[in-house]
Amino acid sequence: MSAFPFTIAATEGAARTGTIETPRGTIRTPAFMPVGTAATVKALTVDQVAATGADIILGNTYHLMLRPTAERVKRLGGLHRFMRWSGPILTDSGGFQVMSLSGISKVTEEAVTFASHIDGSRHVLSPERSIEIQADLLGSDIVMQLDQCVSWPAEEPAARAAMELSARWGARSKAAFGTRDSQVLFGIQQGSTFENLRRESADRLIETGFDGYALGGLAVGEGHEAMCAVLDYAPAMLPADRPRYLMGVGKPIDLVEAVARGVDMFDCVLPTRAGRHGQAWTWSGALNMKNARFAEDDAPLEPGIACPASRDYSKAYLHHLVKSGEILGQVLLSWHNLAFFQALMGAMREAIAAGRFEAFRRDFHSRLGEA
Amino acid sequence: MSAFPFTIAATEGAARTGTIETPRGTIRTPAFMPVGTAATVKALTVDQVAATGADIILGNTYHLMLRPTAERVKRLGGLHRFMRWSGPILTDSGGFQVMSLSGISKVTEEAVTFASHIDGSRHVLSPERSIEIQADLLGSDIVMQLDQCVSWPAEEPAARAAMELSARWGARSKAAFGTRDSQVLFGIQQGSTFENLRRESADRLIETGFDGYALGGLAVGEGHEAMCAVLDYAPAMLPADRPRYLMGVGKPIDLVEAVARGVDMFDCVLPTRAGRHGQAWTWSGALNMKNARFAEDDAPLEPGIACPASRDYSKAYLHHLVKSGEILGQVLLSWHNLAFFQALMGAMREAIAAGRFEAFRRDFHSRLGEA
Repeated sequence: MSAFPFTIAATEGAARTGTIETPRGTIRTPAFMPVGTAATVKALTVDQVAATGADIILGNTYHLMLRPTAERVKRLGGLHRFMRWSGPILTDSGGFQVMSLSGISKVTEEAVTFASHIDGSRHVLSPERSIEIQADLLGSDIVMQLDQCVSWPAEEPAARAAMELSARWGARSKAAFGTRDSQVLFGIQQGSTFENLRRESADRLIETGFDGYALGGLAVGEGHEAMCAVLDYAPAMLPADRPRYLMGVGKPIDLVEAVARGVDMFDCVLPTRAGRHGQAWTWSGALNMKNARFAEDDAPLEPGIACPASRDYSKAYLHHLVKSGEILGQVLLSWHNLAFFQALMGAMREAIAAGRFEAFRRDFHSRLGEA
Repeated sequence: MSAFPFTIAATEGAARTGTIETPRGTIRTPAFMPVGTAATVKALTVDQVAATGADIILGNTYHLMLRPTAERVKRLGGLHRFMRWSGPILTDSGGFQVMSLSGISKVTEEAVTFASHIDGSRHVLSPERSIEIQADLLGSDIVMQLDQCVSWPAEEPAARAAMELSARWGARSKAAFGTRDSQVLFGIQQGSTFENLRRESADRLIETGFDGYALGGLAVGEGHEAMCAVLDYAPAMLPADRPRYLMGVGKPIDLVEAVARGVDMFDCVLPTRAGRHGQAWTWSGALNMKNARFAEDDAPLEPGIACPASRDYSKAYLHHLVKSGEILGQVLLSWHNLAFFQALMGAMREAIAAGRFEAFRRDFHSRLGEA
């Protein structure tokens, strides 16, 4: 029994919809978690984020441990209070950003040592330190084990070594986390695109026992088809009665195909990053708002989405803001994109509950490219 | 009789408080107009701007005529609809930005010819064209005459020539504008820091006859003391029964001292520009939020101001956002600064109405520097 009860209300094929109950609110699944990297979902107030329908956001341990530091966040009352987000927060372990952002990193059995991308200062992140930062200092609701994610493509020996180290770090994370009344711990499956490694990873995680299980090592450059090929088998290796979280994913088409394969949770910087770069995601696909064809397009991006950025501003105005380099353009497109992603998740939840997810999925594919 | 009735409800010395009635809403005076340069008050949604208590915003003819162009704004339903601001809008004439922003400008009796700072394209702005852009294409509520503003310090012959040209352009502006039911035209007093020129300018404007009168040619580098010296005599030269608008001003101390001298309206980029650069204006003065002394300051900027950015976020969080270069820091500080400026205007209106403006003014000065 997890501290956060997970209830599956309906399934259709491998797809499922339900709820995760937390002391800070209910997470409706499948759920998309906006990324609040450095204690802010970039360019948006938490009230704007909440208004899009987000039930939970993600915080990045790597960024927060460097600035303002986890200890400072703790002294200021924890991450929720610091950034004024009252709903649940999932924090990653910091491992992924250590590998991708810091200049130098060295992995040993004990820990990963790295240099800050901000000032070059040296830091050590062990499974135990990551738990301390996430659970005790930031006060995260859903805590992730420290893992090692290999880049893609990976040779099997390297993928095996990272998977095995991640499994051992998972057991150490569980020992450090213990059992808590109002926080939970997720393990992370690794194994790159090797089915045998994914199986072994899942078995070892289940032996340790977690409140939820993430699929790591995907969305690292392998592409949609290769990712779907892994998702054809990997989610089913994880316990059906626990949430399955696909880390760092993704585009709308990735979300739909992963939900079809039994995934319950997602996070990705795409909506906000794309928004800062003039890209708007819609039911018809992604629009480059700099394109001159929008210069006198008086229609809103998505009139059916109850977000001011989606419904109330014309494409012509958004085009003007983006062309002029106005911050408001970054704000409105980030806001709209998050609202669209939440509308997509909501549509999938409703479709699964009504037993028409396959029809929704076909329709979704057929509408792409109409923009 | 102006199309926008101006009612003075109370006076104290030269200070006055009242209302300007417009078809799009009431402007409470003294009023501060946030600057919506390129059809956006930078970094903020119009809903955020309205929530600060702004009754009217300003649009820049120079920026809008170049991008997206006044004709395009017209085709998209006018400036109010384009940017979703339902209250009144005052537009400047474009003259000031032509002189300060465009690479090359040439002034003749007929018009000013200039090169766009965006793409170098050549444009001509005459008094008649400025009226057409503001009143007919953008659909501004309060239209400003084209004027010529000399830089500071100016020699008297140059100041006289610019003042006289501005007076002739004022008469041409009036002829082009005519009389309208739901839009008004303001003249602009020039004359630099020469009392005789200010007098002659006022007399010539009054002879032409405008709905309101602006004080131009100030806030161009002369400093607070020199500006106050002009304000000791210049506002009184303008009709007492029409709104007086001090263009491009200013810091809170400038606003208080100008109100004390009979000014009713202001605009300035300071609150939003300062906000984008990490500066927060408070009753105690301006704070540099990058300063390390705020790193663990858990108090909000101004708990008494009913704006989320002023009341709900800690200085420590704002410090973190600014240090991290986060857009949300620019948004929240711009929002707070506008809310503070509106709170300042509201406090002055209340103080004048209650006959305690002089006490307010003394108290305001005594609190500065406490930060």
